[in-house]
Formats: sequence, C-alpha cells, structure tokens
Amino acid sequence: MHPAVYTSGMTPSSDAPVSTAGAAATRAGRAARLPRVAVVGASGYAGGETLRLLSAHPGVEIATVAAHSSAGKRLSEVAPHIDLGHDPVLQETTVETLSGHDVVVLALPHGQSGQIAAALRAEDPDVLVLDLGADHRLESAEDWAEYYRSEHSGTWTYGMPELPLADGTRQRDQIVGSREIAVPGCNATAVSLALAPLVRAGLVDASRLSAVLPVGYSGAGRSAKQHLLFAEASGSAAPYAVGGSHRHVPEVLQNLRRASGAEGLRLTFTPVLVPMSRGILAVVNAPVPDGTTTADLLAALSADYAEERFLTVLPEGVFPTTGEVAGANVIRLGAAVDRHSGQATVIAAIDNLVKGTAGAAIQSMNLALGLPEGTGLSRTALAP
Amino acid sequence: MHPAVYTSGMTPSSDAPVSTAGAAATRAGRAARLPRVAVVGASGYAGGETLRLLSAHPGVEIATVAAHSSAGKRLSEVAPHIDLGHDPVLQETTVETLSGHDVVVLALPHGQSGQIAAALRAEDPDVLVLDLGADHRLESAEDWAEYYRSEHSGTWTYGMPELPLADGTRQRDQIVGSREIAVPGCNATAVSLALAPLVRAGLVDASRLSAVLPVGYSGAGRSAKQHLLFAEASGSAAPYAVGGSHRHVPEVLQNLRRASGAEGLRLTFTPVLVPMSRGILAVVNAPVPDGTTTADLLAALSADYAEERFLTVLPEGVFPTTGEVAGANVIRLGAAVDRHSGQATVIAAIDNLVKGTAGAAIQSMNLALGLPEGTGLSRTALAP
Amino acid sequence: MHPAVYTSGMTPSSDAPVSTAGAAATRAGRAARLPRVAVVGASGYAGGETLRLLSAHPGVEIATVAAHSSAGKRLSEVAPHIDLGHDPVLQETTVETLSGHDVVVLALPHGQSGQIAAALRAEDPDVLVLDLGADHRLESAEDWAEYYRSEHSGTWTYGMPELPLADGTRQRDQIVGSREIAVPGCNATAVSLALAPLVRAGLVDASRLSAVLPVGYSGAGRSAKQHLLFAEASGSAAPYAVGGSHRHVPEVLQNLRRASGAEGLRLTFTPVLVPMSRGILAVVNAPVPDGTTTADLLAALSADYAEERFLTVLPEGVFPTTGEVAGANVIRLGAAVDRHSGQATVIAAIDNLVKGTAGAAIQSMNLALGLPEGTGLSRTALAP
Amino acid sequence: MHPAVYTSGMTPSSDAPVSTAGAAATRAGRAARLPRVAVVGASGYAGGETLRLLSAHPGVEIATVAAHSSAGKRLSEVAPHIDLGHDPVLQETTVETLSGHDVVVLALPHGQSGQIAAALRAEDPDVLVLDLGADHRLESAEDWAEYYRSEHSGTWTYGMPELPLADGTRQRDQIVGSREIAVPGCNATAVSLALAPLVRAGLVDASRLSAVLPVGYSGAGRSAKQHLLFAEASGSAAPYAVGGSHRHVPEVLQNLRRASGAEGLRLTFTPVLVPMSRGILAVVNAPVPDGTTTADLLAALSADYAEERFLTVLPEGVFPTTGEVAGANVIRLGAAVDRHSGQATVIAAIDNLVKGTAGAAIQSMNLALGLPEGTGLSRTALAP
Repeated sequence: MHPAVYTSGMTPSSDAPVSTAGAAATRAGRAARLPRVAVVGASGYAGGETLRLLSAHPGVEIATVAAHSSAGKRLSEVAPHIDLGHDPVLQETTVETLSGHDVVVLALPHGQSGQIAAALRAEDPDVLVLDLGADHRLESAEDWAEYYRSEHSGTWTYGMPELPLADGTRQRDQIVGSREIAVPGCNATAVSLALAPLVRAGLVDASRLSAVLPVGYSGAGRSAKQHLLFAEASGSAAPYAVGGSHRHVPEVLQNLRRASGAEGLRLTFTPVLVPMSRGILAVVNAPVPDGTTTADLLAALSADYAEERFLTVLPEGVFPTTGEVAGANVIRLGAAVDRHSGQATVIAAIDNLVKGTAGAAIQSMNLALGLPEGTGLSRTALAP
Repeated sequence: MHPAVYTSGMTPSSDAPVSTAGAAATRAGRAARLPRVAVVGASGYAGGETLRLLSAHPGVEIATVAAHSSAGKRLSEVAPHIDLGHDPVLQETTVETLSGHDVVVLALPHGQSGQIAAALRAEDPDVLVLDLGADHRLESAEDWAEYYRSEHSGTWTYGMPELPLADGTRQRDQIVGSREIAVPGCNATAVSLALAPLVRAGLVDASRLSAVLPVGYSGAGRSAKQHLLFAEASGSAAPYAVGGSHRHVPEVLQNLRRASGAEGLRLTFTPVLVPMSRGILAVVNAPVPDGTTTADLLAALSADYAEERFLTVLPEGVFPTTGEVAGANVIRLGAAVDRHSGQATVIAAIDNLVKGTAGAAIQSMNLALGLPEGTGLSRTALAP
Repeated sequence: MHPAVYTSGMTPSSDAPVSTAGAAATRAGRAARLPRVAVVGASGYAGGETLRLLSAHPGVEIATVAAHSSAGKRLSEVAPHIDLGHDPVLQETTVETLSGHDVVVLALPHGQSGQIAAALRAEDPDVLVLDLGADHRLESAEDWAEYYRSEHSGTWTYGMPELPLADGTRQRDQIVGSREIAVPGCNATAVSLALAPLVRAGLVDASRLSAVLPVGYSGAGRSAKQHLLFAEASGSAAPYAVGGSHRHVPEVLQNLRRASGAEGLRLTFTPVLVPMSRGILAVVNAPVPDGTTTADLLAALSADYAEERFLTVLPEGVFPTTGEVAGANVIRLGAAVDRHSGQATVIAAIDNLVKGTAGAAIQSMNLALGLPEGTGLSRTALAP
Repeated sequence: MHPAVYTSGMTPSSDAPVSTAGAAATRAGRAARLPRVAVVGASGYAGGETLRLLSAHPGVEIATVAAHSSAGKRLSEVAPHIDLGHDPVLQETTVETLSGHDVVVLALPHGQSGQIAAALRAEDPDVLVLDLGADHRLESAEDWAEYYRSEHSGTWTYGMPELPLADGTRQRDQIVGSREIAVPGCNATAVSLALAPLVRAGLVDASRLSAVLPVGYSGAGRSAKQHLLFAEASGSAAPYAVGGSHRHVPEVLQNLRRASGAEGLRLTFTPVLVPMSRGILAVVNAPVPDGTTTADLLAALSADYAEERFLTVLPEGVFPTTGEVAGANVIRLGAAVDRHSGQATVIAAIDNLVKGTAGAAIQSMNLALGLPEGTGLSRTALAP
C-alpha cells in the first residue's frame, strides 16, 4: 500500500504537505519508514536514469521528482519509458520542494548544487545530498579554476567505492556515513578504474598515459544542439576536447594520485562521439618496462578488484564491449601487453548513465544509508 | 557508343570473345580505345566500391565483372545500388575471364593474387594489376610470416601516392608506369599519412606511438559472421586485435621507415568497431619534446601535404569526423599538442572503402595509366 | 570439471543430480523449493532474453541452460551481458538434460518442440513447457501447412493473457494451470492487441485491415546471414514477406476471430526491417464508418484493456515509440481517426524480445505456476 | 571582404561583380557562359545537398551561396563535406545578393520564397527560381489554408517530370522552359509515383489508399530539436502526423487527380521516423478487385515508366530498400498483390534529399534550362 507515495499535486490535501514537515519530525519518523528521495533534473538523461534505477529499488521511496524548464509537466511527458506506478507532476527545483527528504539527488548543470545543499542542511543536518554534477569532485581549486573557469565550491566525498587508495583503504570507507557525495564523471570512472591498479603496482610509465574513448551520445546531455542531431551523428565518429582540455583529466589524475601516492602523472585524453546512445569504451595505452606481460597486468587488476561485485576483470585474450554493459551497473576490464611496441593496452567498458552516473550514485547512496551496497542495482545488461 | 560493352554471357556471339583475344591484338588496339578494366570480387564491399567509383570514371571501360561464389548472378542481385547502364552477369574468377584486359583490379582474400597476376602477365606483359588485398604490401618476408602466417609472395609497388619518402621523392613517382600495385590497407593509410610528416620532422617520439581507431563495419567485409550482425553491433563499441596483433602494424612501420629513414619505430594499434558502416577515425598519440606546439605539428603536416589534392590539413582547433568523408577520396587531418601531458594527438578521417581502398586503387590506376591522378574521384562526401 | 554447474551456488552439492531425479521425487520436493527452470536455446536472442529476465525473477531457479551448436561453452562466451551469479556450461539439448525440471522454456527453430515436450511429459505429467517457437500456435492444420509447409504438430494454450475473447472471458483464464503454452509471435502480438478491441466493437471494416511494421533486427535471429550484417542494415529500411506471405498473418486472424467471433477478416501485413536492434512499431490501418471518432477508438481500447497491467492506452494525440519500451514487458497503444480518408490508424509499440517473446513467456509461466502474473517483469524501459 | 569568392577559380576575375550586373548585361552574356546559380539555405540539409550535387554538375556555375543565421561563415564551417574547389563565405539572403543569377535555388522555410521570386523577376524576367519549400506546390488555396494555416501564395510549375497526366502528356512537358518551379515534397514524391499508374489503370480502390513511410531524420531538417537528438532517435521508431495531418497528403491527392482524372481519392498517410539519416520507404496499401495479380500491377507501372531514366520497376518478388538509393537520383518500385487480403502493396524507395528534394530540383532545372535531363545526376548510390 502506498497511501501517500508522492508529494505531487494529486496527493490528497489532507496529507500534511511534505515540504513543511519540520526536521525534528522528519528525524523522528525516519526509523519507521523507507528513506524518502527527491530526484532533481528528472527531464535530463542523468536524472531520468536515476529514476529508472530507483523505480526498481526496494529500499527507498521516490517522494519528489523535480525539474527546471519542464516543471509542471507529468513525468510521462518527459520520460515515457519510466513507470513509477503513478505519474508525478514535476516540481520546481527549489529549497521548498526539496526540503523534508532523507536523500536529494541533484542532476543539475554545475554551479548550482552547493547552495541547495547548504540550504537543505541548514534545515536537516542529516540529509544526504548526492551531486551528479562536477562541482565538488576536485580537491584542487586551481584545477577547478583552470578546467571549469569558475569559483571552486569545495570538495565532497568522492563516490567511487572501488577506488583503492594508497594507504591501503578503499574509497568505499569514506562513503559509508557520508552526507555529501560527489558522483564521479563517467569518463573519469572508466579511465581511473582501468589504470589505478597498474599505476599502484608500478607496471606502467604513468607519465605517458593516453586514453581514447569512443563514447555514446547520451553523455552529451539532452539539450538540443545541432551537432547532437541524429542526422549529424549517424555514420560519424566525431572527436572533441582534443589536446587535453577535457574536464575529466584532472579528476582522473587526482584519482590516480590518491590510489598510488605517485607524482608526475600525465595523461592525454580524447573522447570520440560514436553513433550509439550509451556506453564508454576507454582504450588506455601506457608504456611498460621490458618483460612486463599481460599476465602481470591482469594480476594487478585482479589483486585490487577480486572482491568487487560490480567490476569484472576478463581473462587474457578477452576484451569488453559496451554492448554487454548497457543498463548494468558494471565495469568490465581487459588488458594486454603489446610486446612489439612496449605498451600496455587496458580497455574498460561501462554504461555512462549507469556505472558512469546514476548507478554509481545509487551505489554510494546505499553505502551512505547503510543499505547493502548492491541494492537495486543489476549486473545483467540489456543486449542485443 | 558501346558496341560491345561487356564480355558477359549476353554479348552477341558474333563479337570475337574477349577472352581469346591475343596479347598482340590487345596491344595493337590499345591506343584507339578506352582501357578495358576487369573487376574481380564484385560481390564484396571493396569490389563493389571499385565498381561504384569506376561507373563515374570517364577514362576507362568496365569490361568484365567477376566474382567467386556469386558467379552467374546479375550484378543487380549482389549490388543493386550500382548502375553501370546495363546489368552484367558476374563471371567466374579465372585466368580465361580476366585475360585480354588492360587493367585487372583484384579484390580477393589474400593468397590468390600472385598466381593470377603471373598468368595474366605471361599473356600480356603490359597488363596493369592492382591488388586490393594484402599479399604484396610488405617488403619483409619475416613480417609477412609473423603477421599473416603464410609464405610471402613478394612486394609490389605500394599504392600510396602521397607518402613522402626519406630521399625527398614521393611514393607517387614509383606508381607512375608501374604494372603491379599493392593497394594499401585502410587503417594503415590513415595512421601512416597522419604520422609520416611528424616522424620525418622529428617532432614526435617515434618509439612511443599509439593509435586507437574507431572503424566502421564495412571494413570487416561482407561475409556473414555473427559478431558483424546488426543486432550485435548496434549500440556497441567492440575492440579487436588488441595487444599488437593487427596486420596493419608492420605496414605502418614500413611506411614510416621509408618516409623518415628512422629506425626504432614502435607503434601500438587498437581498432574499435563502432556502429557505422563506413569510416576510420585514427586517433594517434605520441610524446613530443617540451616546447613543441600545435603550430609545429600543423606546419610539418602542411609542409609535406600542401600540394596534395586529396589530403586536407585542418586549421588549429578543427578536427575531422568520418561523417564528412563518406564516399569521398579524401583524408582529413587535425592535430594538437596537449601541453599538460606532453603528447601530440593527430586525428585522421577517411572512408575506409574509398581513400582506404577503392579510391586509392583508382588514384594509383590513373597514375599508372598516365591519366590525370584525380580522374573519376570526388572530394565531396555524402552527408548527412 | 563442473559436476553441478547448473544448480546455482546456493544449492547444496549433496543434492541428487537433477537429471536422474525421478518424477515422483520431483513432485514430492516441489512444494518445498523454487520451481526449477531449464532454458533451451540460450545462445539465441529469444533464449538469452529469457535468461536475462529470469535472472531477476525471484520465484524460480534457473537450473539448466542448454543450447545446440554452442553446447559445451560457458554462458559468458555466448551472452556476456548476463550475470546469473555463476557461469553455467551450456548443455546439449536432449531429453536427458531437460528432464527433472518443473519448467522447460524452448527457444528452438520450429519443428522440434513437439517431440521434446512429449518425452518430458511421459516422465512427468506436471512439467510446464513453453514453446517460444511457432509450432503450436495455430489451430488450423491447413493454415499451418500453407504458411509453414510442414506437418502440423497440434495446438497448445496460446500465451497471450490480455486477449479478450468473444465469450466474454479472456485468454488469461486458459493459461492458468496450463502445462503446454505456445508463446505468441512478436508481430502477431502487436497487431492482434492493437486490433482486437476495435474488431470486437465493430468500429473498423475488418475485411480491409492493413499493417506495416518497422521492426528491429533482433527479430530476425542471431544466425549469421548476409542481409542481417550491420553494414547492410545500417542506413536502410528493408521490407520483407511483402504480399501476404508472413507467417504471423494467420495467427493474427485467428486471434481476431477468437476475440470477436467475426468471420471474413482479412489483413495484409508488411514488416520492414529498420536499423534498430529491438522493437516493433505496428502501424495498422482500417476503414471506419462515417462519424467514427478518435474518442470512439480510444474508448474501445480502454474498455478492453483498462485493467491490464502491461498494456497502456495513450491519450488522444499521443503515440508510442519503440524507444520507450526497450527492455520492458509492455505494449503501448495510440489511435486516431483520419476523417479525410475515413480510416483509423492504430499504433502499437513493443519490444519484440520482451512483450513480443520472452516477457510474454514469463508472464504466462507465472500464470501457469500460480505466481503473481507480473513477477519478475518490469514496466520501465531502458532509454535513451 | 571577399569580392570574388563565389566565382569559382576558373572564372576570370575581370568579370563584373555579380551583384551589380544589370539584367541586360546578364542576358547579353548568357549565351557565352555557363548559367550562374545561387543556392539559398546552404547551411540546411536541402541546400547543402543541392550544393553537393551541383559541385559535380558540368553545366552550371555555383556563383553564390547564401544562408540566414550562418551568413558570414565559410561554407566549410557548416558543410565540411562539400568541396567546391574554393570555400565561399555564406551571403545574407537578400534580393541584392541573389540578383544577377540565371538560376536561384531556394531552400527556405515556407512563406519566404514568393516575395524573393517576385523581386528577382522584376529585375530579370528570365531568372529561373526553384523553390524547395512547399509554398507553391498546391493548386487549392483551401487545401493550403487547411494544412499550412497561412495565406496561399500561388501555384508554380510542379517539378515532378515523371508524373503521367490524365491527358496523355507528362509533367515533364510543363517544366521545359518554366521559370518558376515548385519542387515536390519528398514523401509526396514516393507515394505519388508509386500510386499514379495504378490509379490511372483503375487497378486499386483509390478511396481506400493508405501509406506508411519509414523515413530518415534528415527529412526533419537541421534545426536543433530535442526529439531529433541521436540519443532520442537511436533504437526508436517514432510516428508523427498520425491521423491525416501530414502536409503532403493534399499534394499526393492533387498529383493522383492530375494523373488519373479521378475524383473521390482518399489517402491516409503515416510517416515513421526510423534511425537512419536518409531515405524514405513508402509502403502503400490499397484494395484491388478480385483477380488482380502482381503482374497486373507491374505491367501498369512499367507502362507508365518504361522510358524513365530515374525510375526502376523491379521484377516480381523483388522489393527496394533505402540503402540502395542513398545519394542517387532514383526511385525504385516493387509491387505485389496479397490474394488473401485482396490488397495491393506497392513499395517505393527514394533518398529524401536527392530524388526527394535536391536531385529533383536539378532534374527540373536541367529541363528548364534545356540541358539534358540527367546532367549531373547519378543513378548509382553509396552503399553499404
């Protein structure tokens, strides 16, 4: 029974409006019911994907769905593929509509999450805020200024549970109990998890890293832009951010530094839009010392990831495709040494919207809320 | 007027059968008429593309169309998109059907072209044979043995006119008048032409070259294989030949050695099948010395290619896509230095079936026959 | 060696091997455990999709996975997108490997299911067999002979729960408790459910029905055939079975007759392969009497389907797309009257592999086993 | 400033600037040189395609390229796939920039061509204006008002040379020498040419015509709209204008009336956007009298089209695909009678941008200018 599932306009008015519920009452009721989640940015791809995954999540209640330009529309008008059991009206993205929730997932353009989080926390210090945008990923204000050309709004807990850290712990430990989580960038997820074990093990020359990433169009967002039109994209492979300007570069380097303790890391990084909706295939190259073997690479990857439920290291000679991860919260890795060239090639496949964004957010949410980490997340993909 | 356009079965029997015409008669008549071309492998993609391009070529006559398993069918049954003005029956691929032509274009699996060429030449020493397969591209029998695992059948003139050579000449000079031309591999074309000027100019560390190539499915041929099915390919980026096993690697290194005179060249090379029919986007990375600029790269490319009709070096900040080259006999190049990483990225876009195969063949055919190099070749692509 | 691969990790290895368990023992143990399912044809698309859906089904155990030419391989080799929690070896498709299960799902070429079902039933009269193939869908041996050109093997319970019948019942009632279920054809599902209410209500001229169906390539199966290659399919719309030869025509007419009691039904039916992996968009036209309105059509559809969980009738002016049903067990319907032409247009969107095949099978399985009909089935699709 | 950018490299620079050349001088010089063409709307798909085709047209000179929002940019910035031998700056679309040409091709949103044409004709009564928009296609002001909801601006010569007319002539006769040509709509071209011979021959019930058209995305134009994004379109078949609202319906009916002299024609018409860039596959159904055969249909089509260079009637059992017409100025037709249903199915494949728009425009331009009708137009397509 769902007597008051939604705070949408259709909710019988005899219910106490959610948005005026005080923090004390909220906390008092928390133990007795499912955590209430608000998803902001529901008309975009990241927000929609969050809703898709949460619709199958048994441990939370989707209490509010908000959007910006689509506020006032029904969810079915902007995301007809999602069935929540009812059809909520999209709320305005305001502190009022978002207060009174246990979890707020922000899928907003960067620059907006900091203020909202502060306002919500002022009301309820226990609210969990997950930012799918970039605002709080970087530790270095200098990096932020160079790559995003705006003022840095601080650093939140980085939501990449599997990242092994130089001190022997794992990033997961920092997420448990956190109340402000910066969900990683999709490309950064693929490249960081592909490289971290190899850099940690000293198996690659980390000053000569290069990555080329065929990526799908959903990663470019849902705003109408000419170069994202089907007729432009179909039949074409289109590089962008060539020459080092991609904003995920400092994020990857930060991850690799934290994973390895090493300095002097350098990475060049070229995404290529290819005609598919979802998926990132990160192809990473790095020089290796003479004598390094494919088995060495696979051993290092397995050493760090053997216990990871959402990360698969493939056997020698097998490499992942993006088709086998669509819709699943997984990252699949393959690796080889090219003995002629003295370089390693590591390949990582993820669904940019799931393991790259919304699935990662839910995985971190589960950890932060004390739920089993994999709740509501699937390792099976939709293929063909 | 086309009194006897085709040697197909429908040709009135009062015509002297082409296949019994002696070499002497052939030579005697050569001056007075268009060169007669036979295209072998017409039911495959490379052969079909050769026909498509030749159908608009004013300087030759398509005299015979041959195939293997499709012999006996009409061309319209295997390539309904091609209109030659008539609908020839596909001939068996035999020395008999191929003799008596001025030009024979072989689009065959490797291993078959050497014998046919020898037999044809025994009849007519002036016949021009172009091999779209790999058999005669490599100079090194060792490389051949390692990458193709069969006996080397020798080396023909390499059909890449634009390749600058270490001695100051250009490969074009060797093609003029040649009678045995090995048409380059499609991936090798993109990577070789992207890198040759930079290696020649010493602008990159040629021992640390890496290339990742999103490629379209026509490059994998027309044979029915499960992994090439639409349902498998759609929505997926699928790497292959990871770890240095791709057969175009020794071909690229041979080209770069010939272009630069340098030794110690090393390249790792990863093609990724992406959901498009045509196109190769070669993304090439290489370390550069400190202080190297994007302008340096573009200057080196322009120095070698300024006079090349089918090769465009794009301005700084502009990079090519495969969508803008579909159907055109062009290669478009962009380059940038990533100063953070100390690496250069060079990007080359070609249509694998045109500049990568059939267009290159016709360009070399034109040179060999003494026709203007660009006859029948277009620099305008089909987009969107 | 994997002596007990197909029993999932939780099953104690002390269990007697499945294939030698007698029927009596099977029945005795049935109450105390989850029904054990065998899926046959796992390397094809229909079988793979059945596994994908069952992997999230809480009410059954996937006990055996079988295939034909892929027998002996691991599931991960033929379907790397599926994670069952273990990686079974694909069994040979024999009565031995299939006996001892509670449910057997057959995704086989037609002509093979009858014998297997008979042999299994001889051992265990309670085994539930679902045939994803066509063998047992048609009631008329004449129709079978004309369209399938082989001997008719009989008629099983037709697995389309939502089909309203002329006697006021619904096909669902016949599925409950059935032990032999013929899963409907995918195109037949879309067209039958789009038309049944309108034919029942006498709103359309049922002697002048026409349907054109843009369909995705997974519907053509996973066998390697040239016309199914990505390079052939991409950028092309390709009709087939033009002129009335499609085998789903008699199936649709049978459904409409059963739904309406009407005779004289006639339908022409043209599928068009379009470049997508999944999906059927059935566009159905039929003349309507003067004065018929769009509201009349929608009212008739809603009258029959208002209670159906997996069927949505869209509001006036809204029409479904296949993108909004990918992966979901839903059919979405829109309708309009074109007053100028005097024709109705009804549009149905389904995922051919889910509501069109594997989802429908599981829905019927649930009914037959007495589970809630929607167990393990999602109404939310994967988009974009 | 680029005083002579738009004259191609071969044009002597001593020519008086185009835009100030008086009409008298223009006429005087006309015999001695190639006709000068201005293409307006060059940054859109129809305008770009016109340029692509004209770049290979030996009988005219591309003198001016104009655009609206892209004015001031180089052609290479908006259409990098086109190589005119030089890189013109896009001019503003004004009477000033367009005057002084022999031919003006207008690829504009509807409502704008009438005024421009009138102004140009006031200067030079011999200027040939081709309107790729809809403004002047319809004869009936009532139809215009109903479907376009604006004031009718008159009727120009309809640019469909192959259309057979009830009086035994052909539409071609009216195009020869015309100076105002309304280029047909792309969908209207496919449906009209598929049906005209059958309606003329009385082989179909023309009051019960229905058409469903899988169409590619370039037909929806190049403006950035959310539903045209790659991520939205990929994997989806999306109907639009369901229920009779498509603006090409009155155009088709006008054509069929003119072809047959018949009244009471009725057509319902449903386009479906499918994931391809180019192409229309019109699938047309119509009831036929008992005893009508496929041979009857093919005979009627062949009777009307046997002499048509750009129209192919396929043999019985063969049907066209859009993949085999991409880039070619052809329409391919197949037909069958479904004897069970008593309906005919006719299938037409065209490239919407070529035979559906720009190719048709050039074909009419050739006729109007007295050039051979096929000048610059190819019957060979780009495939795969």
